[in-house]
Amino acid sequence: MKVIRTITALRQEIQVLRANHAGGSGETVVGLVPTMGYLHQGHASLMKAARQQSSIVVLSIFVNPIQFGPNEDFDSYPRDEARDVETARNEGVDIVFIPSVDEMYPQPTQTTVSVSRITERLCGASRPGHFDGVTTVVSKLFNIVQPQKAFFGMKDAQQVAVIEQMVNDLNVPVEIVACPIVREDDGLALSSRNVYLSAELRKEALVLSQALRAVQEAVEAGTAVTAADVRRLLREYIGKSAQAVIDYAEIQAFPSLEPLQDLDELHVFDDLLIALAVKFGKTRLIDNIRIEHMEVLSHV
Amino acid sequence: MKVIRTITALRQEIQVLRANHAGGSGETVVGLVPTMGYLHQGHASLMKAARQQSSIVVLSIFVNPIQFGPNEDFDSYPRDEARDVETARNEGVDIVFIPSVDEMYPQPTQTTVSVSRITERLCGASRPGHFDGVTTVVSKLFNIVQPQKAFFGMKDAQQVAVIEQMVNDLNVPVEIVACPIVREDDGLALSSRNVYLSAELRKEALVLSQALRAVQEAVEAGTAVTAADVRRLLREYIGKSAQAVIDYAEIQAFPSLEPLQDLDELHVFDDLLIALAVKFGKTRLIDNIRIEHMEVLSHV
Repeated sequence: MKVIRTITALRQEIQVLRANHAGGSGETVVGLVPTMGYLHQGHASLMKAARQQSSIVVLSIFVNPIQFGPNEDFDSYPRDEARDVETARNEGVDIVFIPSVDEMYPQPTQTTVSVSRITERLCGASRPGHFDGVTTVVSKLFNIVQPQKAFFGMKDAQQVAVIEQMVNDLNVPVEIVACPIVREDDGLALSSRNVYLSAELRKEALVLSQALRAVQEAVEAGTAVTAADVRRLLREYIGKSAQAVIDYAEIQAFPSLEPLQDLDELHVFDDLLIALAVKFGKTRLIDNIRIEHMEVLSHV
Repeated sequence: MKVIRTITALRQEIQVLRANHAGGSGETVVGLVPTMGYLHQGHASLMKAARQQSSIVVLSIFVNPIQFGPNEDFDSYPRDEARDVETARNEGVDIVFIPSVDEMYPQPTQTTVSVSRITERLCGASRPGHFDGVTTVVSKLFNIVQPQKAFFGMKDAQQVAVIEQMVNDLNVPVEIVACPIVREDDGLALSSRNVYLSAELRKEALVLSQALRAVQEAVEAGTAVTAADVRRLLREYIGKSAQAVIDYAEIQAFPSLEPLQDLDELHVFDDLLIALAVKFGKTRLIDNIRIEHMEVLSHV
């Protein structure tokens, strides 16, 4: 495994690995796992999927300044490069790409890739400009690595929807592979930001997965029939934590993210996303489940 | 030569041609010439450059609706597919890609690639949204064709600057080759829009190249020293046509397009662009010359 910090060296190394693979059978697939580092088992599951589906696995670690708002946690975002490199090695990654901010933005970028509509809701509403930063840096990474597949976690379900929209609209020759959320044994969805939580708040944060599980059970039991039923259940369960401040607790079509009306019946929709963003102290956590053809896909 | 109308068929054909070339010596270079059709000798010069510098030459013909304003000439933009295909054949093009609007935009695009700052001046000022349309469709074409080189005419000098900015900012793996303006014997820069001109207006339009030639001679003679000298000369010459309505007649650094102050002396700048946009009746024409290291690069 190589750790590479410049775009030029990365392109050269991929060319070398591609040439080595070209002799073998079948097509050479470069798989990219774009991350902001501080890797956990959620990231590891992306690397595992990439390893299974690709000839060459590139992991990028870049805390991208332009996707953080002025009052967000860019400076304090947790970093642990040595441990990340070790994790990547254990998962069989071929190249870890760790560019500096200067390498990625030698001048402030004048070019922005932006997706409208589906970026205006949910996280986009409370984090203006966030998704422009994401789609711009993902475009850069795609152009630098030129992967055939890229692996993203469904924990950031809106990010997956936004990137798929970008890929479709711009004919980007990359297949987006969305991988399921990975959870702790007690249900908490893995996140690099969980490290911000005190022991007490971490316990409170369990209401997220509990709320989603309650919805899941109610949908399966047929007691949650409309969007209003789902919204009521979510608020009821999250309300059990005195610390929880809801940013959103919503149900929408996936991947369009068109919100459901209160009276809309769930069975009418093929693919639904139930998504939460809740603040515990200064830490904002997100979680979701997806329901396809009324089947709960990702049990909490 | 193949004429191809769908993205899927185009990608397949490029893959076949790439595989055929891979056996030969050296790297396979795909060269893209993106056009809106109604091809003239200016386009032919781009195809010639592409033929010289590429293994596989793809010409695209697409009148891109999203780069036209609501009151512009999208519907009336001249089209002649049969003649264009013949021109492409004569220039040794391998593939002519002629997608429909539905093929390029099956749904209205939610994704926009936009370049700020250098798009705000010159043509960007009088055609709001125009360059967003250009950078978005060029991104799509780059993603569809995945060329190593793309060929653009310097007649649209600002377009070249904008695309180079986009390529640099987004690490697009395409080399932009800018080719010189091609002119009629009497100096008129070739343009698909020249067909709009009556015989009378076509004659009047010669003031554009005359104004640029006057500046060129004055710079070489040392009588035009400052930006104000250039601006005065341009207006003096264009003023000789009673029909000419100036949109802009400007001098700026290239490729940043930072405007010069009136008192700025030309010799201080490494690379200058003197650019005109002038309306004759309903027809808006553009022309320019470039001066590098005080050497006039493209004599009118």
